[in-house]
Amino acid sequence: MVDCIIIGSGLAGISAALTLQANRKEFLIFGSKALSEKIEKAEKIHNYPGLPDVSGKVFSEALKAQLESAGIEVKEEKVAGVYALKSGFTVLTQEGKQYESRAVILACGVESVRQIEGEEEFSGRGVSYCATCDGFLYKDKTIGVVCTTKRLEHEIGYLADFAKRVYLVPMYKNVEVRRENITIIQKMPTKIVGGKRVEQLVFPTEEVPVDGVFMLRESVSPAILVGGLHTENGHVVVGRDMSTNLNGLYAAGDCTGRPYQYTKAAGEGNIAAHSVSEYLR
Amino acid sequence: MVDCIIIGSGLAGISAALTLQANRKEFLIFGSKALSEKIEKAEKIHNYPGLPDVSGKVFSEALKAQLESAGIEVKEEKVAGVYALKSGFTVLTQEGKQYESRAVILACGVESVRQIEGEEEFSGRGVSYCATCDGFLYKDKTIGVVCTTKRLEHEIGYLADFAKRVYLVPMYKNVEVRRENITIIQKMPTKIVGGKRVEQLVFPTEEVPVDGVFMLRESVSPAILVGGLHTENGHVVVGRDMSTNLNGLYAAGDCTGRPYQYTKAAGEGNIAAHSVSEYLR
Repeated sequence: MVDCIIIGSGLAGISAALTLQANRKEFLIFGSKALSEKIEKAEKIHNYPGLPDVSGKVFSEALKAQLESAGIEVKEEKVAGVYALKSGFTVLTQEGKQYESRAVILACGVESVRQIEGEEEFSGRGVSYCATCDGFLYKDKTIGVVCTTKRLEHEIGYLADFAKRVYLVPMYKNVEVRRENITIIQKMPTKIVGGKRVEQLVFPTEEVPVDGVFMLRESVSPAILVGGLHTENGHVVVGRDMSTNLNGLYAAGDCTGRPYQYTKAAGEGNIAAHSVSEYLR
Repeated sequence: MVDCIIIGSGLAGISAALTLQANRKEFLIFGSKALSEKIEKAEKIHNYPGLPDVSGKVFSEALKAQLESAGIEVKEEKVAGVYALKSGFTVLTQEGKQYESRAVILACGVESVRQIEGEEEFSGRGVSYCATCDGFLYKDKTIGVVCTTKRLEHEIGYLADFAKRVYLVPMYKNVEVRRENITIIQKMPTKIVGGKRVEQLVFPTEEVPVDGVFMLRESVSPAILVGGLHTENGHVVVGRDMSTNLNGLYAAGDCTGRPYQYTKAAGEGNIAAHSVSEYLR
């Protein structure tokens, strides 16, 4: 069991990791070795103190170098769920692995893509966020897949290997995945409808029958990730010390609300790491 | 009347300034052109995301360059008091000037030097924090002066021009001020005692009779700076949006409490600037 698990490799997660490292805590950080797509794509950042008019690319490289020199390695697994135990937490990843920690820092960002009508209603009843967790349930069935980032394109192929038919809504450019059973739809669906379970994915001028819908997003809603977590308008409710309503679980960065700013995220990651160090004592 | 006055040129103040500038607000920032002594003296900073193992000197230079390129100039006046008006604030400086703003961000840091016993009790009754405000009151009298930083040494000379006798407690090295009426005491006083007003400055093995005591510090306690401000253990009480109990007055950085970290201060300055922008709407 490690001291802490950090979920997310954006500025909040990185800041928390650097501070936990400075505090000599044992921790894991889950995310992407490429860190944050949002940082990397930023054209120019003007108000990050100490790095005048830095480009996202340069910023991202600096952060990677800093993590490397601090001996911090980002684990490239996607967290599927966080479960509070009697003492500590179990974190399950989409890769089917299981980790235990005494504390957790949620730094999973905020999904800039809005939820689709019916998405939350059918979550767990045909709507899934994890290809590797639930893909096998749709063997020889028809599914819709909404994918927000090229980084998750490999999951589409994985799903297409099971499903009979895939209606793919790619929200990125240069779609490369090609399968006979994939039909690409270049419009946003307006809603998901059904009865007991998902039945249709509805578009402005048509609808397609589906047995399930996969929402492949960079970040998963905190409330879906952690059962019983107190959220408000999709943001984790935190105190000044970044504590949540769950003992030992802290949150930092965009997932705690606006302003969605790098400086704010870094600051909150720092505070969360200090609060965790305090908590572990 | 400007939109906002920022008090303090440490990381919180700088971060707030950069963000207010990005938000096209009209503001003033009071502090030192040398920015923060605390930053400049830092040997190595390990956990500031984006600047691996940066020295305080390099960090400070980067911040100065960033402010300059953003067209932000720090006003080198020391704020003596902040007064809430019906709509907005009046800020008085020790230089005797007066400024008005619709909002205020308090980023005045925290004084690492502990208060001396009796200091708060006699504040306004012989204990003063402002040489230029109160110096003239001690013409031909005997005063104690506790000075925590070489940066304020010029104020000692100013005081010595009025007073008959000055007992100086310098808390820095290389004292340069020389006057016939200055006696240097190289120990920390333990307390300030008196009746209706200050009478003695007490040291471990002696005491000296004084009519007043000047505490010359880089930062003044927020509660002394702003009347009616809600503080707890010397820290400004703030909400998640950095708002205080006074409408339109926000606080950020070390003055809001631990952790005393650059990253945290920068993050809070960013949030405060966004909250001010929101407030001005």
